[in-house]
Amino acid sequence: MKKSIGAHTLVFPTPTWVVGSYDSEGKPNVMTAAWGGICCSKPPCIGVSLREATYTYGAIMERKAFTVNVPSEAHVAEADFFGIASGRDVDKFAVSGLTPVRSDLVDAPYVKEFPLVLECKVLHANKIGLHTHFVGEILDVKADESTLGENGLPDIEKVKPIIFSPSARSYHGVGELLGQAFSIGTDFLKG
Amino acid sequence: MKKSIGAHTLVFPTPTWVVGSYDSEGKPNVMTAAWGGICCSKPPCIGVSLREATYTYGAIMERKAFTVNVPSEAHVAEADFFGIASGRDVDKFAVSGLTPVRSDLVDAPYVKEFPLVLECKVLHANKIGLHTHFVGEILDVKADESTLGENGLPDIEKVKPIIFSPSARSYHGVGELLGQAFSIGTDFLKG
Repeated sequence: MKKSIGAHTLVFPTPTWVVGSYDSEGKPNVMTAAWGGICCSKPPCIGVSLREATYTYGAIMERKAFTVNVPSEAHVAEADFFGIASGRDVDKFAVSGLTPVRSDLVDAPYVKEFPLVLECKVLHANKIGLHTHFVGEILDVKADESTLGENGLPDIEKVKPIIFSPSARSYHGVGELLGQAFSIGTDFLKG
Repeated sequence: MKKSIGAHTLVFPTPTWVVGSYDSEGKPNVMTAAWGGICCSKPPCIGVSLREATYTYGAIMERKAFTVNVPSEAHVAEADFFGIASGRDVDKFAVSGLTPVRSDLVDAPYVKEFPLVLECKVLHANKIGLHTHFVGEILDVKADESTLGENGLPDIEKVKPIIFSPSARSYHGVGELLGQAFSIGTDFLKG
């Protein structure tokens, strides 16, 4: 039996991503965002939604660029901090001890210690309501070599990304392998 | 040391969601989508990106409504099948044995057997490139009572959503609790 919960932003999974940008004075900043997802394959694009009130919003509007940084479980406290504090008040890199790296491709910094980063150029900024949906074209994906799998691509079990649950406001790891896509459902094709 | 992987839609986590719609003749259909995420808090909105070539694309354009259904681990094979077959060719509900339920709120069906469903009215359809980003206002969230936690909301560990890894094209469960958001990072605030 299903129970009506009401009109809420409640779905699973949502990501724990850290958005990197430079402010107007060139100070690197990061903020955590759970409202986002891949939104196009060609060109490859990722969307993140931010409130106008955030410091990052103004920075991205000005620089037309951002990075999406995927923290590993080991940095869950830093990722949480990046979602609590504002870059208006504090230097989050300095306080956390993490290291900003200037992207060669876009006008934004990425987090050296995080295993997976996407460098993005803003294609669209669509105001939906409280949040504006920034569509960033992914110009490059960079990954720590230690996280690469046999196919040469980052392995989710080595990156250890963080899942956010909006209902309990909790962070979770990635669990066991359930199966291969475009494979385990093929039995149904046989009717 | 970071390695450049190139311009790819490669990030973790991405969801495994099943989008429900009615076609022009009223046949319920479902397709699996990993390109999506919450995109606004007020009004509460979720975005899913679909190619124009999909059968679901035309259905949503016509009906201006869709559902987002969160399959549990137990239905990973069905979720995979929903991403392989096309509603043009087969009745995916009939083949899978799952049950379409007509939403009272929007002109779309949801999947009875899936523990968490969102009923959405289309606010925007933004063509980005190969994919169009459908922004749906969440009119209601419905959850199986068996998945509710102590706070009355769906518990991610009971819903058991499926994580998709674009690099290995694999499905994964949700792992262990890492901590509470807006809490485990507060030590950094003390400087």
